[in-house]
This record gives sequence, C-alpha cells and structure tokens, in this order.
Amino acid sequence: MQALGRHLLLELFDCDAEAINSLDTVKASMVEAAKRAQATIVDVVFHEFNPFGISGVVVIAESHLAIHTWPEYRYAAVDVFSCGEVLQPQVAADYLMEQFGACRASVVELQRGIFINAPGPIHHKPMAVRG
Amino acid sequence: MQALGRHLLLELFDCDAEAINSLDTVKASMVEAAKRAQATIVDVVFHEFNPFGISGVVVIAESHLAIHTWPEYRYAAVDVFSCGEVLQPQVAADYLMEQFGACRASVVELQRGIFINAPGPIHHKPMAVRG
Repeated sequence: MQALGRHLLLELFDCDAEAINSLDTVKASMVEAAKRAQATIVDVVFHEFNPFGISGVVVIAESHLAIHTWPEYRYAAVDVFSCGEVLQPQVAADYLMEQFGACRASVVELQRGIFINAPGPIHHKPMAVRG
Repeated sequence: MQALGRHLLLELFDCDAEAINSLDTVKASMVEAAKRAQATIVDVVFHEFNPFGISGVVVIAESHLAIHTWPEYRYAAVDVFSCGEVLQPQVAADYLMEQFGACRASVVELQRGIFINAPGPIHHKPMAVRG
C-alpha cells in the first residue's frame, strides 16, 4: 500500500495566547518547523487578523504547512501535508506544539491518495522552471 | 457545540490528467471555487513541478484552500478549510470535482477547534493593516 501524501492535522489547545497572536512568532515557528522536518521551502505567506489571529501557509516542495490561530481561544489548527520519504512531519508537529506552549493537543494522521500496487517509492518532484 | 473551523478533505480520483497538470487550469479553478464559496481571497500561490504536478494555496480571509495534484495518477488532494458562517465549502468542493473531471471521490469533513458553550456565532475577522 502506498499513499502519495501524509497529512497530519493538529489541534492545539491551551496555547500561549501571546505566542499565537504574534505574526513574527507564528511565521518564524512555522518556517523553522518546515526546516526541521527537512522540507524545502518554496513560499511563505502569513497574515494577521483584527483584533487577533494569524493565518499562514508555508508552501514546500513536498506539499505545505498551514496554520490558523484563535488567540482568544488559545487554539491553533495546524496542518502538515507532506509527500516523499525524506520529510519528517512529526518533527514539525512536535516542534510547533512546544513553540506554542500547547497544553492539550490531538494529532490525526491521514493517508492521502492511496494507490494499491503503485510503482515503487514516490519521491517529491523538483520545481519546474517556467519561461 | 461550536467549531471554529470546518475542514473538507477531498480525495479526487480518476481526474482529467490534462486539467490537473495545467498550472493555469488548476489555479483558475481554485480561485473560482473560492469565489463561488463566497470567500474573500487574500493571496494566491501556485507552483508547477517537474515532470508533472501542481501545488497551490488560495489564502482566504476565512482560512485557505489547498491542492496537490499527481496527474500521473490522475489524482488530486484538495483541502477547503473555512471559518465563519458565510462561506460555503461544499460549493467549492462540488465545483472542483466537476472542473477536474473526477470520476471517483471521497469527501471527509472535520470540525476543527470545538469549544463547548462558545460565546455566540464566530464570524471571520477582517485583515489587520500593519503600519
């Protein structure tokens, strides 16, 4: 059995409200999580909401990491979607839980795109250069 | 019971390989799906991989839409993460299934961040403007 993607869905409760309300902290933590998971960062997009909350995505060659925070609930929803065999999504998950000071959490792992008898290991592909 | 986020996870099988291998088609379809779902688009980031495959994220004020395609498997993994009560994630899901010509699909809906006795409806917040 071979899944094209591994998707970790993190529910982070009772986080440090200040940490998850800081654009700089959230962005830096997500970028560092991607690096620690051995991801190749392609693009980083983060936004701050009014009066609180951060949303952001780190696009990686191996898929993406996404986060949405609700500091007023001390809650953050994080997704770590990866493909290939090099990336270590759990490393990113562990790091983010620690950085955001989550006291309670759940992690659901989904296998995305399962193909029976797929032809060998599926590695991530290099970016195409256009034009 | 009140969930801060609704997350649709789409597995699209037996898609039109040409459609999901075209950066322009995938990007335009995702942007249109976001619009049809009544989302407010904040940022659009798409990349093409070599020899095939598209990855992309539409960051919306109400969270995000993400896609990763494997044209060689005629497969696409799509996420529609939304918050607030205006956005209609199922409309985006239906549109994308049709656009990519998926013959088989599964849709899993997750409620993210459930808070019992949350204080009233939770609407999405406006973007913050940074000095």
